[in-house]
Amino acid sequence: MAVLGTGLIGGSIALGARTRNRRLPVVGFDDDPAAAAAALGRGALSSVADSLEEAVAGADLVVLAMPVDQIPAACTRLARAVPAEAIVTDVGSAKAAVVEAGEAAFGPRFVGGHPMAGSERHGIEAADGRLFEDAWWVITPTATTSSSAYQRVGALASSLGAKTVAVDPVTHDALVARLSHVPQIAASALVDMAVTGGDREALLGLAGAGFRDVTRIAASNPDLWVAILRSNRTAVLEGLQTLGKRLEGVADAISAGAWEELRSWLDEARSARLELFAKPDHGGEPIAISMLVPDRPGVLAEVTTEAGRLGTNIEDLRIVHSTEGGRGRLELIVAGEAAAGILSEALDRLGYRVERGEFD
Amino acid sequence: MAVLGTGLIGGSIALGARTRNRRLPVVGFDDDPAAAAAALGRGALSSVADSLEEAVAGADLVVLAMPVDQIPAACTRLARAVPAEAIVTDVGSAKAAVVEAGEAAFGPRFVGGHPMAGSERHGIEAADGRLFEDAWWVITPTATTSSSAYQRVGALASSLGAKTVAVDPVTHDALVARLSHVPQIAASALVDMAVTGGDREALLGLAGAGFRDVTRIAASNPDLWVAILRSNRTAVLEGLQTLGKRLEGVADAISAGAWEELRSWLDEARSARLELFAKPDHGGEPIAISMLVPDRPGVLAEVTTEAGRLGTNIEDLRIVHSTEGGRGRLELIVAGEAAAGILSEALDRLGYRVERGEFD
Repeated sequence: MAVLGTGLIGGSIALGARTRNRRLPVVGFDDDPAAAAAALGRGALSSVADSLEEAVAGADLVVLAMPVDQIPAACTRLARAVPAEAIVTDVGSAKAAVVEAGEAAFGPRFVGGHPMAGSERHGIEAADGRLFEDAWWVITPTATTSSSAYQRVGALASSLGAKTVAVDPVTHDALVARLSHVPQIAASALVDMAVTGGDREALLGLAGAGFRDVTRIAASNPDLWVAILRSNRTAVLEGLQTLGKRLEGVADAISAGAWEELRSWLDEARSARLELFAKPDHGGEPIAISMLVPDRPGVLAEVTTEAGRLGTNIEDLRIVHSTEGGRGRLELIVAGEAAAGILSEALDRLGYRVERGEFD
Repeated sequence: MAVLGTGLIGGSIALGARTRNRRLPVVGFDDDPAAAAAALGRGALSSVADSLEEAVAGADLVVLAMPVDQIPAACTRLARAVPAEAIVTDVGSAKAAVVEAGEAAFGPRFVGGHPMAGSERHGIEAADGRLFEDAWWVITPTATTSSSAYQRVGALASSLGAKTVAVDPVTHDALVARLSHVPQIAASALVDMAVTGGDREALLGLAGAGFRDVTRIAASNPDLWVAILRSNRTAVLEGLQTLGKRLEGVADAISAGAWEELRSWLDEARSARLELFAKPDHGGEPIAISMLVPDRPGVLAEVTTEAGRLGTNIEDLRIVHSTEGGRGRLELIVAGEAAAGILSEALDRLGYRVERGEFD
């Protein structure tokens, strides 16, 4: 395995993988030699390379973990250096531009990833092999993605204790804009607004637990965030516009004294907030479902992103190609009867003939 | 003491006061007889009155703890019912309209208050006599406020374990709009935006700890919040406009690719956030400072709000009126040399002749 960029995420992946398998060779590279040396010192790496090219030379799995705005250029640069059979993935917080560059460089062997863990602390010092335990790891397959790339990255995520979910890259970017990037900007804007003007000293008395919560993420690393916002520009601008309109709508309701309308709106947001985090995990026994699939691009992405849309965690996945060619069998393992039932129905509606049980 | 409105705040004040002094008579009233009965059952009240008027009849301290949008009308209604010597205060989250009505009804015997505690849970069931321990209790004196009103409410707050700070009502409202009311709206707007549109089911995977933090307060009670927003309409509208402009500024920077500008802005917000909550409390030994003051309205408000502006907690305060009339001596106790020094200097600049030591 090659890990390019040995900060919090890259370092934690390497550390987690090596904690589980002490003998696993993990070659690392970082623009900052001290960061790579520290990763080596912590046992996250088995060796440090002198260049990106040297790091990937013998790898069968390449993890791009540099700042997200540097990933597209790294893909282009490494197109020929990565061994022909190796799988390439990344951990960037924005995906459309990265996936485009990754597929241009590596074709079906590239699949984007986004582990949902850690952003306030950073650097190899904060790395933790258990960072991904019980976290979600979003995988962003497309019509181009090979099943072996999807499986390999899913296996990496699972081995680190993460739950995987598949979402297509453009949807991913719109979702993270709304769930992470715009809230980040809003938190900073609220701090900026709060401390502007006089009476700054009296703020402490009036800034309660709510303000603390809302603005906690404003203490995040600005360099990291510029890279993220830069890489998800389009979706972030859309999100900011949407938020601006929502706030204008509230201002209009207050100006008009439309208190009942305001109450309903607050109540809906309240219910949505409570529901969002009260949503039960589809846990349970592993259930296998399988289906015949045409051997054409896009099937894997369609099936896995449908599972993602339903919030169903695919625990394992494989494709058995038919010897007759033209079609194969896709087998999925999901946790629990409920999840298996929901996913089977949805896939039926998409035209797949879903069966229970493993295909062996 | 009379407590009008026996919900979370009124109930907690009554409970705290009675925990400290089992024999203190606390008469309560609530629009909801069940809430008043529950407060009596919990020992927060010594008796329940049948009307607002009956509740205040024998009181020397009246605490208005009904929903904030009902306080102005209660003041008007109780103008004659409250005994001539009684002090009146309230606990509303917005102050300008309340203080105006309170002073119209009770003159110098009214002083507004705003204990900064609890808003997600509500009702007498959640009441807790220790709710205010180590919390800030904002007092909003004006040029009209008598020193006995200020002292009495300060003593109530201190007896419940709160730290007091004085802020004038209009500044208070602008500050809470920025620190609490607009953040509340922003949190609800972010939830609303996040759950609108497709892929709602995939949200759970992508909604990280940051989103949880930012939107936690969106789960608050909508009725309470409508009352608050209604009572602080002007300052909230100004705050929403300011926030909207900040967000537009960020969108412009992103559109223009002004990454360095964006980085600086995020960095400033980061520093401000860290500084805000890292600010050390001015703790230490009680230090007395005193000064001759003209016996005219407004002096008390000027001195206490200056202390509030500086973040200095006034532990105790008294005014000794000169027998010659026309002036008196104001004595303040603050915690620690640092706070005493800063406050003395500031008051010197305002033209007061500040001396160290108690006047006795």
